[in-house]
Amino acid sequence: MQQRSFDVVVVGAGPGGEVAAGRLAEAGLDVAVVEDRKVGGECSFFACIPSKALLRPGELLAEARRVPGATEAISGPLDAAAVLRRRDELINNLDDSSQVPWLEERGIALFRGRGRLDGEKRVVVGDDVLEARRAVILAGGTAPALPPIEGLAASSPWTNREATTAKQLPERLVVLGGGVVGSELSQAYGSLGTRVILIEGERRLLPREEEFACEQVTASLTELGVDIRTAQKATSVHREGDTVVVTLGDGSTAVGDELLVATGRVPETHELGLETVGIPAGGYIKVDENTRVPGKDWLYVIGDLNGRALFTHMAKYQAALASGHILGRPMAATHLADGTGAPRVIFTDPQVAAVGHTTATAAAAGITVRVIDLPTSGNAGGSYYGSGARGTSRFLIDEERQVIVGATITGSEVADFLHAATIAVVGEVPLGRLRHAIPAFPTRSEIWLYLFNELGL
Amino acid sequence: MQQRSFDVVVVGAGPGGEVAAGRLAEAGLDVAVVEDRKVGGECSFFACIPSKALLRPGELLAEARRVPGATEAISGPLDAAAVLRRRDELINNLDDSSQVPWLEERGIALFRGRGRLDGEKRVVVGDDVLEARRAVILAGGTAPALPPIEGLAASSPWTNREATTAKQLPERLVVLGGGVVGSELSQAYGSLGTRVILIEGERRLLPREEEFACEQVTASLTELGVDIRTAQKATSVHREGDTVVVTLGDGSTAVGDELLVATGRVPETHELGLETVGIPAGGYIKVDENTRVPGKDWLYVIGDLNGRALFTHMAKYQAALASGHILGRPMAATHLADGTGAPRVIFTDPQVAAVGHTTATAAAAGITVRVIDLPTSGNAGGSYYGSGARGTSRFLIDEERQVIVGATITGSEVADFLHAATIAVVGEVPLGRLRHAIPAFPTRSEIWLYLFNELGL
Repeated sequence: MQQRSFDVVVVGAGPGGEVAAGRLAEAGLDVAVVEDRKVGGECSFFACIPSKALLRPGELLAEARRVPGATEAISGPLDAAAVLRRRDELINNLDDSSQVPWLEERGIALFRGRGRLDGEKRVVVGDDVLEARRAVILAGGTAPALPPIEGLAASSPWTNREATTAKQLPERLVVLGGGVVGSELSQAYGSLGTRVILIEGERRLLPREEEFACEQVTASLTELGVDIRTAQKATSVHREGDTVVVTLGDGSTAVGDELLVATGRVPETHELGLETVGIPAGGYIKVDENTRVPGKDWLYVIGDLNGRALFTHMAKYQAALASGHILGRPMAATHLADGTGAPRVIFTDPQVAAVGHTTATAAAAGITVRVIDLPTSGNAGGSYYGSGARGTSRFLIDEERQVIVGATITGSEVADFLHAATIAVVGEVPLGRLRHAIPAFPTRSEIWLYLFNELGL
Repeated sequence: MQQRSFDVVVVGAGPGGEVAAGRLAEAGLDVAVVEDRKVGGECSFFACIPSKALLRPGELLAEARRVPGATEAISGPLDAAAVLRRRDELINNLDDSSQVPWLEERGIALFRGRGRLDGEKRVVVGDDVLEARRAVILAGGTAPALPPIEGLAASSPWTNREATTAKQLPERLVVLGGGVVGSELSQAYGSLGTRVILIEGERRLLPREEEFACEQVTASLTELGVDIRTAQKATSVHREGDTVVVTLGDGSTAVGDELLVATGRVPETHELGLETVGIPAGGYIKVDENTRVPGKDWLYVIGDLNGRALFTHMAKYQAALASGHILGRPMAATHLADGTGAPRVIFTDPQVAAVGHTTATAAAAGITVRVIDLPTSGNAGGSYYGSGARGTSRFLIDEERQVIVGATITGSEVADFLHAATIAVVGEVPLGRLRHAIPAFPTRSEIWLYLFNELGL
């Protein structure tokens, strides 16, 4: 056993862990990072980065096909092999060595291995014992959940890891779970030419987002040829050679060459040594507004592992909260775009971009909202987008406080529309002032102008 | 002479006039609108709408060509005929009758003819005399300036009107003026296959925007094949049959089949009867914060005609200011994104989107700013955009007040990025709060995150 001492020990080198370590090291602290898989984390290699690489070329080509003048120039299908090659470039062929210099430049010590707590301010990695003089940050993330379906584990199912990194496209893919991962990857594989069957136990896809978003994505995936089966639970799975057969509750079957399980995530709390500091293993780890574990002034938990908002961008945000607090520069603030209201973009076609409340969460929170729905392309700017492009912009107005408390925008390439809404929600900019922020003509941002027209402002 | 009386008479049925008339009529006022050309105005038929129709398909196809997977699907060039057909649809083949029902539904009386003031609260249109009980709103707009160059007027030059509505594409086009109109139309014609020579008297294109924006647009137009000649003034023009020859100050010539003059705009103050109410004709008409002419409590001037900000969206904004003031619900507010700081988007490739100050206007205004420059695609979201896409995001920070006072964003399809910056500038959202508006990963909106990294927040 070799013992070393650092100001802060960060367990997990995903986006959250990296940002936290970087901020602390740049402030002059002595920092160690522990990672047993890839520096860069799930996001860089098996989630956001490769999935968007699989999605964007198809989305772009679909939009070009909808626009007169451009569509005539297109004669062939999406080149799936080229898409996969570009994906491989973006995930560096699963080699994380290019991420290491970023740590080295900041003097951050990297320990490769499974990090686990061994009592207060102590982390063990293989033969090394790391003493944390100030704090330990757990940033270990989540893993795909594998639901207890008969035969599933034995059927060699794909998780997001295999689906985002596959070298060959299966002819037929069955997807279990119609949340964000299942919907995005159905879109990706469907656009690349795979026949996809998408199974969702709930009544509808994307159950956490506005119903209209689900309807539009459902219609679009159906047009793409995805066979969507909602309100159906898989009861058993059976693989025979190259074929996997999923039996559903109604007795029907779904047959594929591969089966992707996308039924949610579970926090990776096993082998973290939580029991050595008296934290019950199993669920997400509760933290306060600075991402610190109540009662443990040395322990922070950021990213997926605290369950607040399972997004790369929120992990990076929490990394700033934690490192700021450790450095004596706390920045936590109470606002609507944290936790379940965190900004989120689903890269289907139409894309779904949302921040703050949905109609359902506002009702659950007891906030009376005025709902304003507008067609995202129902303005001059929208006339340059493909006429087949669906899209709705929903704004939720708290009339009592005269602020926007939620927005959901669907449409072609609307991912970057969201930040305006996020600033309005987080900034709590009063409607009377927001009215003076004039969207340029002719852009689809005129949804904001139409919003104020509807509000009589 | 037939005399009629209205609460408000609006002279000019462009975007500003229409919005003002609509808002007043919807509030119950008796409103007349006077228009001697097209209901819908220059914007709908000869400016924003058709120019973007000429630009967007080429921009979209150029982006698709830059993205692996999509580019392999493209075999042909942009279909210019299809682009022109779609343009014709969007300008309704220059028929404004479809715009009239909007007025009729609101009970607005339309008078076709040249409206001119005939003393206080009186407007004459042909044989009609319209008495305004409450107010007159002048919304007459601007016309293309024709500089006093020898031979120019006799050479049958195009203005934006001919260039945006041409039924045939000339093989060779000479463009005089490298401002917004000249740059956009050079891009449009260049992408549609016309050989373009662009002449600008100043040292550089887009002289009102940040220098880097100019450089990027210049490089891109050059790659498209546009022959750019800056710091050159045309000294004479000579047309012989189908050919027009422009002689420049250095003695060189530019030869084209058509010549587009895009050297600025002049207010259409002639035949407006300004002299009957004691306003000197010739220049822009000065107004107060409610767009009212000082000393004339019944006269408002909105849109291009007051020279505050020559954009359709700002005309519509001023329409709201004027009508609100007339209705006793004034909404004027002082903020940075009005006047010369108004939000603006130039639809070249890269697009240029800006709001508030540029480095130059901030300096001129005596504001010390911290300048933060970031590559628009220098983030995970940017890796899905074509690698040839240029782009820079510049934020101007007033560190004393801890707010953003200007932003200029260039890049592929960044038009809808602007509104986030506009809300930040208009809302004067403090940086410490803005920091909590988290851009979704992986989107190019992470320029905002990188901004805060640079600021150490």
